[in-house]
Amino acid sequence: MEIQVMKAIMEDNISRAENLRKLFKEKKVLVLNLISSPGSGKTSLLEKTIRNLKNEYSIGVIEGDITTSRDAERLQQFDIPQVVINTDGACHLNSMSIEKALNEFDLDLIDLLFIENVGNLVCPSEFDIGESAKIAMVSTTEGDDKPAKYPLLFQEAETVLLNKTDLIPYVNFKKDLFYRDLKAINTDIKIIETSCTTEEGLEEWYGWVRKKINDLEVR
Amino acid sequence: MEIQVMKAIMEDNISRAENLRKLFKEKKVLVLNLISSPGSGKTSLLEKTIRNLKNEYSIGVIEGDITTSRDAERLQQFDIPQVVINTDGACHLNSMSIEKALNEFDLDLIDLLFIENVGNLVCPSEFDIGESAKIAMVSTTEGDDKPAKYPLLFQEAETVLLNKTDLIPYVNFKKDLFYRDLKAINTDIKIIETSCTTEEGLEEWYGWVRKKINDLEVR
Repeated sequence: MEIQVMKAIMEDNISRAENLRKLFKEKKVLVLNLISSPGSGKTSLLEKTIRNLKNEYSIGVIEGDITTSRDAERLQQFDIPQVVINTDGACHLNSMSIEKALNEFDLDLIDLLFIENVGNLVCPSEFDIGESAKIAMVSTTEGDDKPAKYPLLFQEAETVLLNKTDLIPYVNFKKDLFYRDLKAINTDIKIIETSCTTEEGLEEWYGWVRKKINDLEVR
Repeated sequence: MEIQVMKAIMEDNISRAENLRKLFKEKKVLVLNLISSPGSGKTSLLEKTIRNLKNEYSIGVIEGDITTSRDAERLQQFDIPQVVINTDGACHLNSMSIEKALNEFDLDLIDLLFIENVGNLVCPSEFDIGESAKIAMVSTTEGDDKPAKYPLLFQEAETVLLNKTDLIPYVNFKKDLFYRDLKAINTDIKIIETSCTTEEGLEEWYGWVRKKINDLEVR
């Protein structure tokens, strides 16, 4: 019985996600679902990315947070539409919460929608929310074993940002092991090494985002 | 209906946890449930702690991991009883999995049992597994906002280890904000600043563990 209910929740989530994906395609909105452990640097990446791309594209943000609006407050400096989803203890966003949040946006006016998921390397990977792509973020301080230990996210993600590369000299992080495990899980995955402190790799990241938006426009 | 099923799961977990807690008290085993984000340093702490306390106490470990036994492999260097619980995708340990793991231990021979939960700052806090105390770990590289953003763990934990203090010079971590938020959530919480690299604070941590074991013996 428990399994049946779980299935119903999952099926409902999937069908809503498929509708969202259709809507985003129709409206030509690139939707990026950012997933990482707590404190890997998702909000710092958004700060940098919005500052750099806001004159090229119209950007919106959905912030998933268990209880506060702290991440959203960090982005208030930018004049862009933003909605916080407080999950009240839940460990991930789902399609239904995204549907509700979309009431606050005019998708005709948005090119790029970032969804910052709840800080959690496990559960958000299990819930499709209609995104164009999942972006996994891992910081070097978390250790090189994260892809092997939490494989689902890295199977699902189109791109991985290996963040906080500026801290590699101070931690025991073996890049070759990280790459080896990651490629074993997902041969096609794109890896971009970034530091939101030194800005290493951010131009490559912006280039990746631009290309994805162009691909949508051409279709 | 969904909520009823969830309640049944929760109630079953709680009653099993209460039985486990009784058993641990009777057998005078200190059971510490280690909870943190992925890569905060739980296994590194165990490596240091086991090396330092194994001649004083008889120690066992339960390793919660989604799919691998990598953490357990790091502890194989010590000749201590160890069980890995692979959660197969689940984001936390529960009482039933601990019950099963206990079949592999002789509790009459154990003073101190560490349970390293799945790397996740959210879900493990919601599931009592009969532990004597929850130990929260946060690394400085995750940012000073973690207690405010993930309050449940810090309400539940008896002690917080603020780990990777050696990296404070390289990251933007405001200790006063961290302490302020933490004390607002849980005035009684004990905070120990640690670095498994420089060994700062580890003697204080070992002292805390020793005191907890003594308290059990005296009762």
